[in-house]
Amino acid sequence: MSPALPGHLVPMHCHSSGEEFDTQGSGLARVNPDLASERLTASFCVPSLTAVLDGGAERTRVRRAVVDVIESDPVFSRENQYFQSQNERYEAAVRKAVHLRKKMQDMGWSEDGPESVYIYRALSGDVAFLLHRVFMRSISVLGSDKQVAKWIPLATEHRLIGSYAQTELGHGTYLQGLETTAVFDISTQEFILNTPTISAMKWWPGDMGRSATHTVVFAQLYIHGKCYGVHPFIVQIRSLQDHSPCPGVIAGDIGPKMNFEHIDNGYLMLKNVRIPRENMLNKFCEVQPDGTYIRHGSQQINYFTMTSLRISLIADEVILPLMKACTIAIRYSVVRRQSKLKPGEEEAKILDYQTQQEKLLPQLAAAYAFHFINNYLHELFNKGYKEIQGRNFALLPELHALSSGFKAMISQYCTSGVDICLRACGGHGYSLLSGLPSLYTKILASCIYEGENTILLLQTARFLIKCFTAARAGQPVPPSVTYLAAMKPRKCPAKDKLDFLSPDIYTEAYQHAAIRLISSTAAKLQDLIQSGAERHEAWNQCTVQLVQAAKAHCHYITVKNFVETVEKLENTAGIQNIMKHLCDLFALHGIFSNAGIFLHDGYITGAQMDMVTASYLDLLGIIRKDAVPLVDAFDFTDKNLNSALGSYDGQVYQRLYEWAQKAPTNKQISPAYEKYLKPLLHNKLSKL
Amino acid sequence: MSPALPGHLVPMHCHSSGEEFDTQGSGLARVNPDLASERLTASFCVPSLTAVLDGGAERTRVRRAVVDVIESDPVFSRENQYFQSQNERYEAAVRKAVHLRKKMQDMGWSEDGPESVYIYRALSGDVAFLLHRVFMRSISVLGSDKQVAKWIPLATEHRLIGSYAQTELGHGTYLQGLETTAVFDISTQEFILNTPTISAMKWWPGDMGRSATHTVVFAQLYIHGKCYGVHPFIVQIRSLQDHSPCPGVIAGDIGPKMNFEHIDNGYLMLKNVRIPRENMLNKFCEVQPDGTYIRHGSQQINYFTMTSLRISLIADEVILPLMKACTIAIRYSVVRRQSKLKPGEEEAKILDYQTQQEKLLPQLAAAYAFHFINNYLHELFNKGYKEIQGRNFALLPELHALSSGFKAMISQYCTSGVDICLRACGGHGYSLLSGLPSLYTKILASCIYEGENTILLLQTARFLIKCFTAARAGQPVPPSVTYLAAMKPRKCPAKDKLDFLSPDIYTEAYQHAAIRLISSTAAKLQDLIQSGAERHEAWNQCTVQLVQAAKAHCHYITVKNFVETVEKLENTAGIQNIMKHLCDLFALHGIFSNAGIFLHDGYITGAQMDMVTASYLDLLGIIRKDAVPLVDAFDFTDKNLNSALGSYDGQVYQRLYEWAQKAPTNKQISPAYEKYLKPLLHNKLSKL
Repeated sequence: MSPALPGHLVPMHCHSSGEEFDTQGSGLARVNPDLASERLTASFCVPSLTAVLDGGAERTRVRRAVVDVIESDPVFSRENQYFQSQNERYEAAVRKAVHLRKKMQDMGWSEDGPESVYIYRALSGDVAFLLHRVFMRSISVLGSDKQVAKWIPLATEHRLIGSYAQTELGHGTYLQGLETTAVFDISTQEFILNTPTISAMKWWPGDMGRSATHTVVFAQLYIHGKCYGVHPFIVQIRSLQDHSPCPGVIAGDIGPKMNFEHIDNGYLMLKNVRIPRENMLNKFCEVQPDGTYIRHGSQQINYFTMTSLRISLIADEVILPLMKACTIAIRYSVVRRQSKLKPGEEEAKILDYQTQQEKLLPQLAAAYAFHFINNYLHELFNKGYKEIQGRNFALLPELHALSSGFKAMISQYCTSGVDICLRACGGHGYSLLSGLPSLYTKILASCIYEGENTILLLQTARFLIKCFTAARAGQPVPPSVTYLAAMKPRKCPAKDKLDFLSPDIYTEAYQHAAIRLISSTAAKLQDLIQSGAERHEAWNQCTVQLVQAAKAHCHYITVKNFVETVEKLENTAGIQNIMKHLCDLFALHGIFSNAGIFLHDGYITGAQMDMVTASYLDLLGIIRKDAVPLVDAFDFTDKNLNSALGSYDGQVYQRLYEWAQKAPTNKQISPAYEKYLKPLLHNKLSKL
Repeated sequence: MSPALPGHLVPMHCHSSGEEFDTQGSGLARVNPDLASERLTASFCVPSLTAVLDGGAERTRVRRAVVDVIESDPVFSRENQYFQSQNERYEAAVRKAVHLRKKMQDMGWSEDGPESVYIYRALSGDVAFLLHRVFMRSISVLGSDKQVAKWIPLATEHRLIGSYAQTELGHGTYLQGLETTAVFDISTQEFILNTPTISAMKWWPGDMGRSATHTVVFAQLYIHGKCYGVHPFIVQIRSLQDHSPCPGVIAGDIGPKMNFEHIDNGYLMLKNVRIPRENMLNKFCEVQPDGTYIRHGSQQINYFTMTSLRISLIADEVILPLMKACTIAIRYSVVRRQSKLKPGEEEAKILDYQTQQEKLLPQLAAAYAFHFINNYLHELFNKGYKEIQGRNFALLPELHALSSGFKAMISQYCTSGVDICLRACGGHGYSLLSGLPSLYTKILASCIYEGENTILLLQTARFLIKCFTAARAGQPVPPSVTYLAAMKPRKCPAKDKLDFLSPDIYTEAYQHAAIRLISSTAAKLQDLIQSGAERHEAWNQCTVQLVQAAKAHCHYITVKNFVETVEKLENTAGIQNIMKHLCDLFALHGIFSNAGIFLHDGYITGAQMDMVTASYLDLLGIIRKDAVPLVDAFDFTDKNLNSALGSYDGQVYQRLYEWAQKAPTNKQISPAYEKYLKPLLHNKLSKL
């Protein structure tokens, strides 16, 4: 079968290297022979797998077209990104955002067209005004028709830049605790906004530090001295004439972060800032001129907005970075040769060491597993959205629980996966030029934003405990948790290591483990309460185990979904076979790495765990052969990877050297020489 | 008992905050009341524990004196570090290095005086010329008396700056594979050095990118066309008149890295660079004028140098960063309040949530465990050094195995611990101003440098397998592995959860697990070889399990040493009690988190694992009460922590706000406004 390299991936800017010592580069596009040879023996057709991942060849075509347009425009270049300061990154990101609007108009791409999902991806997220979009979305969802009609056109045309000011210095996850106040003044028909304490300062909102002219501020609404809880208000914070802060507004940038240098995360203090009554977003609740507070319709849709946000970030912010890290680390690991496997032979490719396979290949399998579970979550979400449009909110609790748990579980898993890829590349992985450090420092944030992971897992756990109790009482439960009602066999039936390549065997094991953890924690909770503990204290004493249970549930659903996805694949082009191997690897890696969970009640015995280990290690050797084609199928361009180690041609050392020469540290003689070194070193003799 | 706050820790530069909204600061040193209250209930005397950690009150005094001198000198300030570019960091580090030499002269501190160990620590490693010191050490160890007499005085006086060029672009861990050549030219009595391929370029050496005038180059020695292996040569790379590269030398900086911005890690290419015959370091081997190659004495001392380097970095580069991260995260976790534990009550300190305790307190226990194992390793090393001076090399294999395994195990554990601390601080942990991101990005490198961890663990495993075979054959083995000879009971005797607070019970469990993993892997290796696999291939197929076995061994020794240390402590000032709790926590956390290893053969049953879990979770609540005093005892100054979240006074929000205002992003109007935003936003009306 032909590995059929996608034409647009062949980089034209790379240089020959090989035996000859050539620091100038010949301009030839030559693939490192160690990498090239990996592509000759693929057991499956790479473009076919790419099409499966994209959801069809037509979408592959659209994606590549978007990528081509973005990457051929120098404004969107990320070439010198690793050398830029926070100020430079911000300036470039604003330039890109402004240019992007023009580009989309020129290309006829609309916000909801087929191209839209690929634009941000092609930019690697390196663009400003993302919170401006959240500003717009919040007005669309929470604003009245009149508010939408006033603000959305202005925002669309970039005649104002918006932000979304929810988080405060002292409050993130616990929204009820927000301290900013909005007091209604009947006499002037205005709200008076204030930041009453330092911890009430808005802190972290993107686009707010330097760009935004407006923002949606979440504040405690007071009317006649009575608090009505947190509500959203549109507040102008900077002048449209000269961008200076509005009266009573103190705003700025929160300074350097581990990544997101291109975003001006900001702070905001408000001192008696007055806004008209019309600036409270009032689709769901309204303050009338006489101070009467009225609530319209359901607020459950807000709940759904959070859910949709969590699901929407998983693909681009979490799974793609892991796919990129795998691509970089696996390509590098067949170019890098170090030490000898067999005395007297050539040095070995490091991917031929079992320990290196054991680091990287499970991450590769996880990237596929999460890609497929993400599809599952999106389907579920779309179904839920239709129901909600028909005013049926029955799916919400399950959707909320799944979106919370999966956002947490996948972001934690993928963050750890990127970290493993980085370390597996040794010293060169530690260079920013490898692309791995910035992937890591960025994906790490996904464990924290849009709900801190532990809190999210506990929300899932609360749902699971509730469903478990209901299921055991014979009451109906949502589809994803019906398994909790089942009473299953108490022992794994596997007899030899090949049995563990049976999806039924390992899926049952995951299901059993999830049920055991949920039921034993439910029992502990019950015991504590029956022994007299207060409910909240009993809950707190179970939270370590509740987190374990929620993870086990998500892990189980992921394995089950991978199995079902593989079953549905057609076995043309060798796709189903290789996906089956990856599915097995993902499942057995999970059992191998969390052995205690499966051994605890003897469901899997020690002898069976040895079989798991044997099958798991065997799979590493099998998938090793297809490792490079499996990352090629992700179809990242060199520009998108932006990695000296991970390029398609594998000219690792040449590229590291070329890129290093462009570093600012090589562009100037450091003042340190004249000031500190010369007085010590200077010698009439140049040589000792 | 009085918690007796060490006076020099009370910061004089902090500001009041509290209820009143005060952005100016009153200049009063007021400790956040939530943090202050934590210090009133300590179960032990903090200064006494500090003295234990320092190895005596006198050493505490010396350490604090060094810290005071360094921190009161503005040249050594790290105040704006988080805002500086790579160029600025480098310049500051060179300035500090030059100033430090003068300071040490002024203070009468010698390189081997009692102060020396604390200087680098007080600087937080933020200083240049560390590789200059390795350059000097390598000449001292590998050079003849004549070479030492020539080069050491020049280097000591900073009349040259040295570096140490071993690693190449294509070779790190596998030194035999180095490609740089040094060919002896009899006619001129010179060595001709060359970089024959791009992968042969020296890459990574510190101080080489911009500072060094000289370096020790490791190259394959050729005489009359015959290769004699890798040897060290002193090579001048830059002019002493104007710092320009010497003829045939191409050198520069390798560009941005994940951390170490202050260090000019460099690259070096050599094209027919000639150096005199006298520049080969020739204490152990020499090339005579006629080309005769002579080897003197033993080279085993080199082996010892690597060992000593690995042990020496553990304290400052690995354990201290974890201690700092714990200090920051734990202090922040009693200041930060979020959500409610009990309905109707005040929001809870986040350290009162079980999940937060379970993240942070095991890291705290690990910091203590590793502090004590580091003492053990140093004692062993000092003993070994004495033996070696007496030409007895018998201890070397054990020392090598221990230093490799512990460097790997501790660096991996502590890196993961710092990561956990960072994430446990939520969004604010992600700000560079928290100090946590730079601790993480720096400690991560310790998993890679001085031997990549997986390779080091496999070296330990090789030693263990050898000793296991010897022990089972009744042959003598080194002291740390005599336990491998023992045949132990096959079941853990614990009957209830309190039994797991018995050090005998858990130490036995660790010992049993280590023996099982080593013996089962030895058996698998044997099986594979007997089934006809070649030795090297059989080894490769066992490496995943060998790594597990090596870690289990190091974990066991760490637990055993913690237990023995606690037993030796006097129980005055409540020290022994609290250390016993930490020791229990460290041990039970390890069993809880690696349950599979202990459950595998039924040594610990599922029911017993539930007892472990119960005791483990109980301990969290006990240690929670002393968490703040336990980090106070590490005795870091605010300047040393350099963290807006971790200062002694707990004025977290105030400090975040003050520091953010100093960021360069707030010091200029971005050109982005004039260029990109103004054309869009400008409006005759300043307000919408």
